[in-house]
Amino acid sequence: MASDPVTLNEFLTERLGAGGVVDDPNDLLRYITDWAGDHRGKPLLVARPRTTEEVAEIVAHCHCHGIPMVAQGGHTGLVGGAQPDAERPELVISLERLSRIREIDPLNFTISVDAGCVLQSVKDAAMEHDCDFPLSLGAQGSCQIGGNVSTNAGGLNVLRHGMMRQLVLGLEVVLPDGRVWNAMHALHKDNRGYDIKQLFIGAEGTLGIVTGAVLKLTPRAQATRTALVAVPDVAAALALYGQARRSCCDLLSAFELIPRACLELAFEAAPDLPDPFDTVYPVYVLLEVAASGSVDLDAMIEHLFEHGTTAGMVLDGVLAGSDAQAERLWQIRERMVEGQQLRGEHLRTDIALPISSLGDFFHTASRAMAARSPETMVIAYGHIGDGNLHFNLLPPADLDLAAKKTLLHDLEAALFSLVDDYHGSISAEHGIGRVKQTSFLNGLDATERELFEGIKALFDPDELMAAGRILPRTR
Amino acid sequence: MASDPVTLNEFLTERLGAGGVVDDPNDLLRYITDWAGDHRGKPLLVARPRTTEEVAEIVAHCHCHGIPMVAQGGHTGLVGGAQPDAERPELVISLERLSRIREIDPLNFTISVDAGCVLQSVKDAAMEHDCDFPLSLGAQGSCQIGGNVSTNAGGLNVLRHGMMRQLVLGLEVVLPDGRVWNAMHALHKDNRGYDIKQLFIGAEGTLGIVTGAVLKLTPRAQATRTALVAVPDVAAALALYGQARRSCCDLLSAFELIPRACLELAFEAAPDLPDPFDTVYPVYVLLEVAASGSVDLDAMIEHLFEHGTTAGMVLDGVLAGSDAQAERLWQIRERMVEGQQLRGEHLRTDIALPISSLGDFFHTASRAMAARSPETMVIAYGHIGDGNLHFNLLPPADLDLAAKKTLLHDLEAALFSLVDDYHGSISAEHGIGRVKQTSFLNGLDATERELFEGIKALFDPDELMAAGRILPRTR
Repeated sequence: MASDPVTLNEFLTERLGAGGVVDDPNDLLRYITDWAGDHRGKPLLVARPRTTEEVAEIVAHCHCHGIPMVAQGGHTGLVGGAQPDAERPELVISLERLSRIREIDPLNFTISVDAGCVLQSVKDAAMEHDCDFPLSLGAQGSCQIGGNVSTNAGGLNVLRHGMMRQLVLGLEVVLPDGRVWNAMHALHKDNRGYDIKQLFIGAEGTLGIVTGAVLKLTPRAQATRTALVAVPDVAAALALYGQARRSCCDLLSAFELIPRACLELAFEAAPDLPDPFDTVYPVYVLLEVAASGSVDLDAMIEHLFEHGTTAGMVLDGVLAGSDAQAERLWQIRERMVEGQQLRGEHLRTDIALPISSLGDFFHTASRAMAARSPETMVIAYGHIGDGNLHFNLLPPADLDLAAKKTLLHDLEAALFSLVDDYHGSISAEHGIGRVKQTSFLNGLDATERELFEGIKALFDPDELMAAGRILPRTR
Repeated sequence: MASDPVTLNEFLTERLGAGGVVDDPNDLLRYITDWAGDHRGKPLLVARPRTTEEVAEIVAHCHCHGIPMVAQGGHTGLVGGAQPDAERPELVISLERLSRIREIDPLNFTISVDAGCVLQSVKDAAMEHDCDFPLSLGAQGSCQIGGNVSTNAGGLNVLRHGMMRQLVLGLEVVLPDGRVWNAMHALHKDNRGYDIKQLFIGAEGTLGIVTGAVLKLTPRAQATRTALVAVPDVAAALALYGQARRSCCDLLSAFELIPRACLELAFEAAPDLPDPFDTVYPVYVLLEVAASGSVDLDAMIEHLFEHGTTAGMVLDGVLAGSDAQAERLWQIRERMVEGQQLRGEHLRTDIALPISSLGDFFHTASRAMAARSPETMVIAYGHIGDGNLHFNLLPPADLDLAAKKTLLHDLEAALFSLVDDYHGSISAEHGIGRVKQTSFLNGLDATERELFEGIKALFDPDELMAAGRILPRTR
């Protein structure tokens, strides 16, 4: 039998050499567990190709012998998409050894990279040429470009620079039959028919394996200012956002909503972290402006503070006076995620709404959750400038794990139904994978589902590539 | 026979009322001739629906009876895509009566519109809410949003705000079988699986008829500064671009290359237009910066001038002191296109290259053209910040029309072959339509062609919708 691990192992070892195959159960562990430790699968084996050609050879072999496969990057996905299937063992194709920066062209503001490059290394390479690669995520030290493309990653700077989709100019993809689709174009404009690359971006590896990308760079920021602003409520944070877009001339690179409860979680995770204010405020906004040339950013932010104070939108504010102080403000944003993790079982969501509906949704959803489970704690923070709310729920501590899971499952369904009412999305940036599939399919109309299925069938009629992600397997 | 004009006319008149069908040969004229007067077709009839439902009904009828159809916007396309086929008569579905602004949401920075809205009217509506819709084209007074989406329109502000693709958040499309795909999402982030709307953007109407769109707005610019800068050569213009991106903090909204020959053409078309300088310079750059808040744009540009002068990139410069003066500078850019038109038969191209290759390409291509036809005049201008060159050719005036056509055809082939050598695109923003099809297919590899054909077959297996555009008809 072709998908017999022994035969496959022989093929891979012959093609890739000794370091190219992982079959030791201990070594396999890191390829089957994701960041949150939530998802584990059962791989046939792990292949570690070094070049696009090797990826193509492996895929062609799998295609020929009907072996299911799944590509894997930095294991930082949040929807279980890259973990091997537990029921139908898949060959994991790890891109980690395709980690070459192929070319940097600072005048064209582009960088061309292998899919296995870690995001941080791409950012570092850009910086050496006085450029920035603006994608910024908590996971940037380990996530890989191929994963960023395949999940259309978002993060902190979407407000200004867009999601990964807006940053990709060219792609190289190994199709599910092993053919290489080479469109590594370093062109800022290209209107030659259907923009095929858009299908691979955000496809979670279901249509092909991204092996290379040409990415857009921006001029390196020479100055950055970070501020934490206290506001009376979410509505004020939204009004301040509208003003900030204008006052800051779209130099706004982050605008994060942080209710007080999130600050408390950050202090739980990092007791040494100081509260930047003497007073406790209900809601905070962490904002950042950045400029590559000489603009008076301090004056810009002070003007925003003054205007906001006069209009009753701003209660208090602190403008970081040094990089270290800015770093401490960002620590609040990062450590609160850790604090949430420390509380154990909880529900993470990733909702998008029209920005103008965020305030209303926030209150309606909070009330709806409280009505169903008064003891459950709402931890709702997010990228306001993108309309993206991580409306998370911490169940009462005294429930046992099974009861927590059941409760969270019910609350999620109620929450997602509200998201629908508000014409929102149940996945702003995390994707669908397997975790969100049921909710996703519930919201998909028949026409759209037919188009989705048609696209999957066009690229991968045998359902061998990342099957079961986004859409369910049909065989 | 179902596609008999009489039967079709009856159906359309019954559904759409008297104003809904155009069959008078004189009235038909404006639906079969495009902006440049180059392309004429032979329509069955013209249908003028008022709503998405009416479009869907017409399309369903055509699908059912095998009637070929083509959607039409503002007749400003440059590749003959929207003109009805001359060989196989098509029903023209004009979107001109779908011209409703559906909703403006200034806090969400979105506007929701019918596809038949004229671009300028969308820009005006945005402005009433203190926002800008940044797409800016010469044709904005007559082109329509549906056409802008279907051609992925570019224009003057792509450098800062991207092409139409970057400005579309949601779409409503009537599929070739008459079903309506409604994805009018006003969400800045949405990662629910394949991003189907990307396929319709730039598809030139071959996969469905766009009937509505949700578009991104930006804060309204409170201040704009326009400058014309004289530079020694194209290489200096490129170096200045790299510096300007940095010095102007990405507030640069236009950066246009205008060689001296283009100025002369503008003066031919508008003899009253003053030369902004006393001296004749070889190459100019028209640049614009814009800001929604209070930033010292004058200081920004002066700093760029100074830096550029010291570095030998800038020979002279004029910063418009008033709106009227800025308008006169922009007139140069607009009237030169008119001047080119007045010279009669000529070759218009729309090339994209990596920005860093533009200088080298400019000289190599100019030399190659001169070697083939020393009398042919190169008129190469363009959106440098996008790597987009309109490398146009004026043949010798003393040739007859047939000889001009033959010469331009040969020169185009030589030029496109060079574009290939430089890894460029033969269509940066105009699309493929019918005019560029042969050149496009020559450059398409087998894998890519198969994917293109698969996508067309998935959406329009009967080849009834805008057939023969982008890909050739197979039946």
